[in-house]
Parts: sequence; C-alpha cells; structure tokens
Amino acid sequence: MNNYGGLLLECEYCKKLEKYNFGDFIFKTKYWIVFLAPQQSNIGTCVVALNRHEEDLSGLKCEEWLEFGELVFKLEYAVKQCFDVTMSNWGSLMNASYLEEPPNPHVHWHYIPRYNHAVEFEGLLFEDPYFGTMKHRPFRSLPDRVRKRIINNIKNKIPQTSLHSHP
Amino acid sequence: MNNYGGLLLECEYCKKLEKYNFGDFIFKTKYWIVFLAPQQSNIGTCVVALNRHEEDLSGLKCEEWLEFGELVFKLEYAVKQCFDVTMSNWGSLMNASYLEEPPNPHVHWHYIPRYNHAVEFEGLLFEDPYFGTMKHRPFRSLPDRVRKRIINNIKNKIPQTSLHSHP
Repeated sequence: MNNYGGLLLECEYCKKLEKYNFGDFIFKTKYWIVFLAPQQSNIGTCVVALNRHEEDLSGLKCEEWLEFGELVFKLEYAVKQCFDVTMSNWGSLMNASYLEEPPNPHVHWHYIPRYNHAVEFEGLLFEDPYFGTMKHRPFRSLPDRVRKRIINNIKNKIPQTSLHSHP
Repeated sequence: MNNYGGLLLECEYCKKLEKYNFGDFIFKTKYWIVFLAPQQSNIGTCVVALNRHEEDLSGLKCEEWLEFGELVFKLEYAVKQCFDVTMSNWGSLMNASYLEEPPNPHVHWHYIPRYNHAVEFEGLLFEDPYFGTMKHRPFRSLPDRVRKRIINNIKNKIPQTSLHSHP
C-alpha cells in the first residue's frame, strides 16, 4: 500500500520518513502527520509524526505542542466514533532508533486505542485481551482493502472545528 | 516518606491525589505536579500529574499543553544533568484505572529516563538492561534518604528560564 496515498510523493521529507515505517498516511496538519500504524492488534492504532526533523520532545516549539493537543482531541474523537474506543494510550518512546549506530530518532507518538469489548470490522474480530495493562502483543497485519477502509473511516470522522471552539 | 514534602499538606486536591500513589512530591508548576515515581529501576523516573481533575488527555486546555511542553524540556534537562540520561520515554496510559469499577482515571504522564550505561548513585548501581526496547522490569524501591537526595538533585537542576527564552 502506498504510504502516502499518492498525495505527498513529491515531498522530500515524506520520502525520508518512509524509512521509519510509521505506516500508511491518513492526514496531515501544519506540524504533524498521522499514519495508520503497521501493527493493528488494536484496530485504529496510529503514529503521529512531527512534520520536520527533530530528535527529542524537548525540541518541540510552542505551536507544535498546541497543535499536538488539538490533534489528540481530534484523533481520539474520530477513532472513538469509528470503533467505540474505551480509552487511549499515548506514548513517545523512540527506543528502536537507539539500537542503531548512530541513533537517528525522529519525534513521533504512538496512539493506541484500548477496548474493553471485542470489535468487528469487515468480517474480522479485534480483541484487547490485556485491556487495563500494557503487555506485548504479536504483530497483526491487515489486508490493504481493510486498511484503506479504516483510513477512510478515520479521515471522515476527524472534526473540522478547532480545539479553541470546544470548552 | 511524606508524599508532598510537607509543603502541600493543606491542599485538598493533593490529599485526593495520594490514592493514585504517583510517588513523592518534587515540585509543581501552575498546571502540573511532578513526583518521583515509586518505581526507580531507572533512576530519576517521574510522574507528571495534572493539577486539577481531568480523566482524558482530550480534555487538556491549550495553556496546560503549553506548560506541559515547557515541563518536558525542564525535566529532561534536569534529570540529564543529574544522571547523564541517554534518551527519554514519555507515556500517558492510565490503564490501571480501568481495572477498577467504576474507572477513575486522572491525567498523568510517566517520564522514564533511559540509559545506555550504568549509573552509580549513593553507592547503588542502576542499570537499564533493556535499553532500546520497552520490557517490564521488577519493581525497585529505594531507601528514603536516597529518594530525598534524588529529589533535591532534580529540583536544584530545574531551569528557571521559560521555554520561550530558548530557541
């Protein structure tokens, strides 16, 4: 599956991002790019990567933090609408980059929706057997057509209003 | 060890926070409270809790995100000065709260400094054998006097300048 939906193929920065294997492009904002993660044990799992090169969260600028906050709200809202998410885990680890020499980390967030119930989508069953804890799960890939439907569904549910307009 | 260093004992909100067992009070800002986490397998591990009750990251306000960004910079800087941190993991999970009925989550972040080398402090050795990955480690508690020294050292290294004054 084309990582950037054909939209961003001319972008040098996106080409560079491909090596990180963040997943398939869903949408972008001014400062962040949202991908559907390769690992879909928990349906709707995403990666949110900074739209410029930066190695450490400490290097984020005010406007990037502000827009990230808005994105947390919008992405949680959209994925909840799609799959009845119970709660969300967010993490910025970047551990794998430090297994390389020299390390070449790029600021990104893992968004993992968590479910206290099974979810059925396109005839497939998604369970979250370790709900309430954080345990490693085997990698689950999905057929391209299912990934495309997930991406479209999430994209269609992203609210267009700004964070500043909700209380 | 007194969770709030005797400073905040009159605060109703802090009393309420005690049940979450976030650890020992280090310092607070307008919107966040920083604790030294109970688990010190990785020396300098902290919890950063929102200074009002809120269940979900989606509910954070702009000014809270902005100040969190500033805190990420300050805390990473301070703990790096103290223990020569290699890189940092940040996560907001709140899983354990969903094992209770009804769930009663409170927005907080785990800050886990990671080390590609052993650190010695107060005659104790701290290693990070899973550096570059995220694996569960057995709980490591420390004597009160060591925790107090860690807390003081971190507090003394927190920069007083604002995020807006660094590039």
